[in-house]
Amino acid sequence: MARVYNFSAGPAVLPEEVLKEAAAEMLDYQGSGQSVMEMSHRSKVFDKIIKDAEQDLRDLLNIPDNYKVLFLQGGAHLQFAMIPMNLMKNRVADYIVTGQWAKRAFKEAQKFGDAKCIASSEDKTFSYIPDCSDLPIDENADYVYICENNTIYGTKFKTLPNTKGKDLVADVSSCFLSEPMDVSKYAVIYGGAQKNIGPAGVVIAIIREDLITEDVLPGTPTMLQYKTHADNDSLYNTPPCYGIYICGKVFKWLKKQGGLEAMKAYNEKKAAILYDFLDQSKLFKGTVEKNSRSLMNVPFVTGDADMDAKFIKEATEAGFVNLKGHRSVGGMRASIYNAMPIEGVEKLVAFMKKFEEENA
Amino acid sequence: MARVYNFSAGPAVLPEEVLKEAAAEMLDYQGSGQSVMEMSHRSKVFDKIIKDAEQDLRDLLNIPDNYKVLFLQGGAHLQFAMIPMNLMKNRVADYIVTGQWAKRAFKEAQKFGDAKCIASSEDKTFSYIPDCSDLPIDENADYVYICENNTIYGTKFKTLPNTKGKDLVADVSSCFLSEPMDVSKYAVIYGGAQKNIGPAGVVIAIIREDLITEDVLPGTPTMLQYKTHADNDSLYNTPPCYGIYICGKVFKWLKKQGGLEAMKAYNEKKAAILYDFLDQSKLFKGTVEKNSRSLMNVPFVTGDADMDAKFIKEATEAGFVNLKGHRSVGGMRASIYNAMPIEGVEKLVAFMKKFEEENA
Repeated sequence: MARVYNFSAGPAVLPEEVLKEAAAEMLDYQGSGQSVMEMSHRSKVFDKIIKDAEQDLRDLLNIPDNYKVLFLQGGAHLQFAMIPMNLMKNRVADYIVTGQWAKRAFKEAQKFGDAKCIASSEDKTFSYIPDCSDLPIDENADYVYICENNTIYGTKFKTLPNTKGKDLVADVSSCFLSEPMDVSKYAVIYGGAQKNIGPAGVVIAIIREDLITEDVLPGTPTMLQYKTHADNDSLYNTPPCYGIYICGKVFKWLKKQGGLEAMKAYNEKKAAILYDFLDQSKLFKGTVEKNSRSLMNVPFVTGDADMDAKFIKEATEAGFVNLKGHRSVGGMRASIYNAMPIEGVEKLVAFMKKFEEENA
Repeated sequence: MARVYNFSAGPAVLPEEVLKEAAAEMLDYQGSGQSVMEMSHRSKVFDKIIKDAEQDLRDLLNIPDNYKVLFLQGGAHLQFAMIPMNLMKNRVADYIVTGQWAKRAFKEAQKFGDAKCIASSEDKTFSYIPDCSDLPIDENADYVYICENNTIYGTKFKTLPNTKGKDLVADVSSCFLSEPMDVSKYAVIYGGAQKNIGPAGVVIAIIREDLITEDVLPGTPTMLQYKTHADNDSLYNTPPCYGIYICGKVFKWLKKQGGLEAMKAYNEKKAAILYDFLDQSKLFKGTVEKNSRSLMNVPFVTGDADMDAKFIKEATEAGFVNLKGHRSVGGMRASIYNAMPIEGVEKLVAFMKKFEEENA
């Protein structure tokens, strides 16, 4: 079978060029006689891989010098605990709940202190981003937490919340490197790699240095302290070496595409093709309020579960795969991350048009 | 460059056949049109990968039905915390300290309760396994902890400690699947994959089911509870999919080699070639007491740091790489895991003989 158009929400499509390079280097990475999977994480060869990956990420996001970049494990889910364990000095934090993952992060934080939900969009199945211009931020809040792009629901914060001077922590798993960010506006930015960056099993955290201290909650495991990893440049123990290597290749690929300004333009163009079609379609419609729409995840429905199922079946047969929506939204979801080529979206829309005509 | 003979202690050599298959499937796994890195962990294709991996591991180790197999993240280091957090019901545990990793596990456990070191071989740079036939096991001990094979020091427990009825927890990272084990003698067996099984970033834990409960220490993060992963067949969140896929391939390769009895015979043969040479050499000598010798990690020295350095340099040039010993032992260390072919050991010994003659 040829390569399909893979609209998976994550793990997700990777640049074909990156996969080809990885395949070619599998038995012998650049004359080392070893696969990257086989080399010591303390070797000079791997040291260059991880340092280059960090530098390329710093270049892409213009990360200020007073931020550390950490390559971690455990997925975003482990960050749900690491964030309060490391940052909740006053044991108070404010959470904005815009989807299932923000809600899980909020619930996990409640284990460790007074985590409050200060805004939510659960009343309308998380189909919008609430107004965050004047929220009741606790004056003792150690941080304000958001999930910046909501993979399941297809929403994204277009402006950051007004945190009234408090530190902002953001899970950016599903919008990481999809457009430029002003890192200095955040205290912590983190994301699982498996959506826009690389394989599952790597989490990248970008943390303002003053927040990396020994002053963590009692009983915090050594491995869950940011300081452990920061003091050892992510090599306290064996990191997920192969995943970091693939992430590094994706960073180089992004630079070659022109960096994040270019990716933003490309992603806007791709998303517009799909949203414009949805806005005029008589069969399909988007589920998200227009001003909250994600560039990365586009949920849509026909309003008829049988028709949705028919569409997904026929789309899959035509090579457009992983279009089934999350069970909490139903219908379809097209995740169109950085590595989804514009042809993939054009061809999907052409297929949707044809399906609409045939099923009018 | 051709493939080298890679004696790395971990990440370490993998079967060439496995790497070749992985390279061939990189852009299209078995007609799916996707890399395993790109597929949803909830997809049917990945479900078969992880289920097959578990079944093959169960077959290899004859894992009894009342044991769960979990694919986790965070390395052995995260297990150092997860074990006490999940098992220390009485807040008492006994540790046998036979090396740096056992010591780290012991120190981490002290964060969570009364962890005691009941035996140690630190007096002689961990060059032997202490007599564990009649140790002062605490009558309230929740478990007795060992590191079964000590990667840095090249020692291995030849008989398991007498735990006087208490549950035994073993870190088997560097001897995992190198020979058969009687799983029923353990409460928990765990190991990082990156030595004998697959790439870094996967930890496999085999846990007796009655130990997997909600009764964990207060403040244990959701992701650090075995029950979270056990209840979801290791798919509570996105697992390190690609690593699990490679582990699965290694399990199939091990079955093809004849399983663990065959691997044991092969590993004994390989180790004997090296130990027999060391025992008669006038230049090189092993650092471990004979009855504690590991089949997997073989440290040796010349007794002269300059000569060691000369040997490592010339060996590297000849294609025998990653032979430098750990700084706490010095000299050399040859890790000869499952995937190291017997020719690699034979050629290394031939090279050592020649070096000895030239430097007599």
